Amino acid sequence: MSVQVPSQVSRGAAARLLPLLLGLFMFGGPVGALDNGLALTPPMGWLHWERFMCNTDCRSDPDNCISEKLFMEMADIMATEGWLDAGYEYVCIDDCWPSAKRDARGRLQADPERFPSGIKALADYVHARGLKLGIYSDVGPTTCAGYPASYGSYELDARTFAEWGVDLLKFDGCNLQNISVLVEGYTNMSIALNGTGRPMVYSCEWPLYSWGEYIKPNYTQVRRYCNQWRNSADVEDSWESVRSLADWAANHQSLIVPVAGPGGWNDPDMLVIGNFGLSHSQQVTQMALWAIMAAPLIMSNDLRNLDGFSRNVLLNPHAIAVNQDPLGRQGTLVAKLKNNVDMWRRELAGGGMAVALVNRNQIGGPVLVNVSLSAWGLLGARVARACTPWCAVQVALPPGDATFLRLQGQAVRVAVNPTGAVLFTVRPHGGLPQPMVGVL
Amino acid sequence: MSVQVPSQVSRGAAARLLPLLLGLFMFGGPVGALDNGLALTPPMGWLHWERFMCNTDCRSDPDNCISEKLFMEMADIMATEGWLDAGYEYVCIDDCWPSAKRDARGRLQADPERFPSGIKALADYVHARGLKLGIYSDVGPTTCAGYPASYGSYELDARTFAEWGVDLLKFDGCNLQNISVLVEGYTNMSIALNGTGRPMVYSCEWPLYSWGEYIKPNYTQVRRYCNQWRNSADVEDSWESVRSLADWAANHQSLIVPVAGPGGWNDPDMLVIGNFGLSHSQQVTQMALWAIMAAPLIMSNDLRNLDGFSRNVLLNPHAIAVNQDPLGRQGTLVAKLKNNVDMWRRELAGGGMAVALVNRNQIGGPVLVNVSLSAWGLLGARVARACTPWCAVQVALPPGDATFLRLQGQAVRVAVNPTGAVLFTVRPHGGLPQPMVGVL
Repeated sequence: MSVQVPSQVSRGAAARLLPLLLGLFMFGGPVGALDNGLALTPPMGWLHWERFMCNTDCRSDPDNCISEKLFMEMADIMATEGWLDAGYEYVCIDDCWPSAKRDARGRLQADPERFPSGIKALADYVHARGLKLGIYSDVGPTTCAGYPASYGSYELDARTFAEWGVDLLKFDGCNLQNISVLVEGYTNMSIALNGTGRPMVYSCEWPLYSWGEYIKPNYTQVRRYCNQWRNSADVEDSWESVRSLADWAANHQSLIVPVAGPGGWNDPDMLVIGNFGLSHSQQVTQMALWAIMAAPLIMSNDLRNLDGFSRNVLLNPHAIAVNQDPLGRQGTLVAKLKNNVDMWRRELAGGGMAVALVNRNQIGGPVLVNVSLSAWGLLGARVARACTPWCAVQVALPPGDATFLRLQGQAVRVAVNPTGAVLFTVRPHGGLPQPMVGVL
Repeated sequence: MSVQVPSQVSRGAAARLLPLLLGLFMFGGPVGALDNGLALTPPMGWLHWERFMCNTDCRSDPDNCISEKLFMEMADIMATEGWLDAGYEYVCIDDCWPSAKRDARGRLQADPERFPSGIKALADYVHARGLKLGIYSDVGPTTCAGYPASYGSYELDARTFAEWGVDLLKFDGCNLQNISVLVEGYTNMSIALNGTGRPMVYSCEWPLYSWGEYIKPNYTQVRRYCNQWRNSADVEDSWESVRSLADWAANHQSLIVPVAGPGGWNDPDMLVIGNFGLSHSQQVTQMALWAIMAAPLIMSNDLRNLDGFSRNVLLNPHAIAVNQDPLGRQGTLVAKLKNNVDMWRRELAGGGMAVALVNRNQIGGPVLVNVSLSAWGLLGARVARACTPWCAVQVALPPGDATFLRLQGQAVRVAVNPTGAVLFTVRPHGGLPQPMVGVL
């Protein structure tokens, strides 16, 4: 599938146009995707876990505990400070929201002290701001933190979530007493969600828990039932964690990349940009790699306290455009260049390519990378075609770098910081005879 | 030794006064220190290694290669942009400066292409700006990077350095063919340096190379011959590295802390603040711990490209005052508090104490630490005396927090970021009856 972006169309217009075009051809995603019409591009939003965890102490820490106040504050900011406009639309609750007991009718209910208005009211609040609400449960009898979960109540819980107006379910895999029911549990909840008639993104951890038992997941089956799925460990607020999640994806790319596409995505877990553990360069790298990997862009941070650098990385329109590219092809690691630099690439709609160079060194200064004829060759025939005679090269990250044009075969020279990345796109430029700047 | 800081004296005046007072009593440092009158407080400056390493490619990377231009540019910035005023006075060359061959008279000489004016001219340039010059050699026949070094030429090289006007020698320990000459080599170079009559700070790696051969160093002897000494691995531009260097010091504190003091210091290696691998919180932690550990404050970064945050951390006057405290007592890890927070403390001149709280978590949000009566007790009788009835508590890092006063027993409540630190001082406040703000 290839859609030519008319070069006279502005990027914004093209971004609006392409999902529509693609929607006509592939509603519900490629063959084998979950048939709920959702997640045609990777979901974007916010989830409380990495930053706020299971903080239920609203007495001494009222601003950071898991409560309706926290989600309402995040929703307000997402709606008014540019996040929704950029595509971040799901406000997601993770573990520790329920009351310790189901209600008299056996239904899950929110903790009455921390969510006094209940989840339906929170969903209304979120919807009124143009956002969507995500909730969390577990395939086992209790969640990872020990709250009531969905084992034996999949249909009831799916109906409850639908009645509340929930738009996404993150379904964890803790506390299954018998791993043999993992597949059954995840598929049954998928069927239950679809049975409600309410479209809800279904975010699974099925492969992760399968790998945990040394059982290779059936990814064709996973894709058939889930809109996104976690394969590897929970992200933490550290470079070590971000790097190891990307390494996991690279090491398993022949297995996991073919199954990703509109409707279903590999999920390397949350963006931790804007917290405490990543340097500026490392924040750039997480954004660049999550864009290349077609990963759900689910932030876990405190939007009330975010510095300008982190905000600019998370809202970078070029990086988001790569992530949301309607062709929906997940990128791969294509080469380990000299000086410890990794090269990743992702095919884009319209014959273009996104490229990320990641400097794995943890010492010294920036590495100068000459993407010369030979390295350019690593990008394949698609880029050769795109660059005959001219292509547009747009540096997306680090933010602030310019657009420029390149004749086929001309080297691109970039400096990549230790633990940092450079993300750029190469797109056909319609054969215009003159180099121009600022046209994509 | 206790020197009372008169409470009406400004902090700046006290900082100028105390070294003079102490100099009268302990010129050359406590018994057993190297008798060259130097390093009465931990040396402060800049060293090229961690950031610029052995980059000798001045053709394709002229701004970052090891050349006289690099050191002249750093000297200009140190002299004019507040670094020298804050105490950073040594501009230090590391490996890869020499020519591959000694000169016709057997003397070391600088690479003629990269240092066309020679080291003496560079020393003059540096001295003209009020700064001091550091140079580098090795106890073995060649440096770690393979350049000519001092084995068999200690006296000649010491005289050469003195003639050039060098003020500090970093003496590495690579390529010794027989570890048994390690002690002899380091002591002989010390004697050779002192024999020149020119005071030069002597920075050793003797303990590091001794540990490398599983031989516990004789720290009394090390202190007698060196002004500072490396014990543990080279620092890298990562949280993992900074944390592990502090952990090494904590794990060996009963051995290494007693020997530190005016004239001789344990050296956990360079400050990497302002580079690519540390988050803002982690930069605060390195500065806080290096202050508490009475470590030499030797930056390795690019002073030409430093963001405001890093600059403010490195120039933080309160953190520098802790580091340069004239009592010269190295601080220690005193407690592992709940929630994975480490508490460090360092005794200060005048009956005060510096305290660092370090949050070792790599996930979640800030940890609220209540330094309550019981935790306060960990700070010992010295703080109890200082806080009777009032003491002045100054938050040094993160920058920007206020001074406030505390009655004995009042809790201090701080939020410590994951991988971050809070550094504060507690000082006697002369028994004034009223709480005041801004007085130290």
